[in-house]
Amino acid sequence: MNTDPNCIFCKIVAGQIPSKQVYADDYVIVFEDINPKAAVHLLVVPREHVVSLADLTPEHDVLIAHIMRLLPKLAQEQGLTTGFRTMINTGKGGGQEVFHLHVHLLGGDDLRGIGFTR
Amino acid sequence: MNTDPNCIFCKIVAGQIPSKQVYADDYVIVFEDINPKAAVHLLVVPREHVVSLADLTPEHDVLIAHIMRLLPKLAQEQGLTTGFRTMINTGKGGGQEVFHLHVHLLGGDDLRGIGFTR
Repeated sequence: MNTDPNCIFCKIVAGQIPSKQVYADDYVIVFEDINPKAAVHLLVVPREHVVSLADLTPEHDVLIAHIMRLLPKLAQEQGLTTGFRTMINTGKGGGQEVFHLHVHLLGGDDLRGIGFTR
Repeated sequence: MNTDPNCIFCKIVAGQIPSKQVYADDYVIVFEDINPKAAVHLLVVPREHVVSLADLTPEHDVLIAHIMRLLPKLAQEQGLTTGFRTMINTGKGGGQEVFHLHVHLLGGDDLRGIGFTR
């Protein structure tokens, strides 16, 4: 499995940097964002070092499908019974700052300042 | 394939309601959001009527992986060479208003008001 010794999320996956982990399986770990933007703000992070959505290959189809179907289960576990928002930043122009793929799961009463309804 | 005759996105998929379509394949259609929140604002919509992320089953793994790997290609085609943002609203509490799964692809210089970097 591809890892990057200089990547902060690889270090969190490896347990070298602590995190408030709420879930883990063979594909991903999930932890609370250190600077939450909403009442619930989780990061879903693949164990494998994949830089961004733009770096997914067909070999990652199982991984990304797993992540997308895991999101509603995580939201339920967090008590987000009425719904949640998912955000992914890809590349600098998309606001990505940590270059290890991560999916933001956001929920709670304070989503108004983040994104939009539709 | 599951469709809902009362669903606005099913009607767009069927061509019964016009849209500014930029891409289509066997799985999805992609069109410009009618009320864009950014310089580029596309909606990626499955042809099948799936209500939300919470309604995905293992049978949809091919579909959702296809969508996630399509996003960077669409962004490139739109000239978003430095990156893009992806947003998915699930359920009323997540701000979902059209109950047919859709992925927002956002890009351009004006992303600051939408979501956050990280």
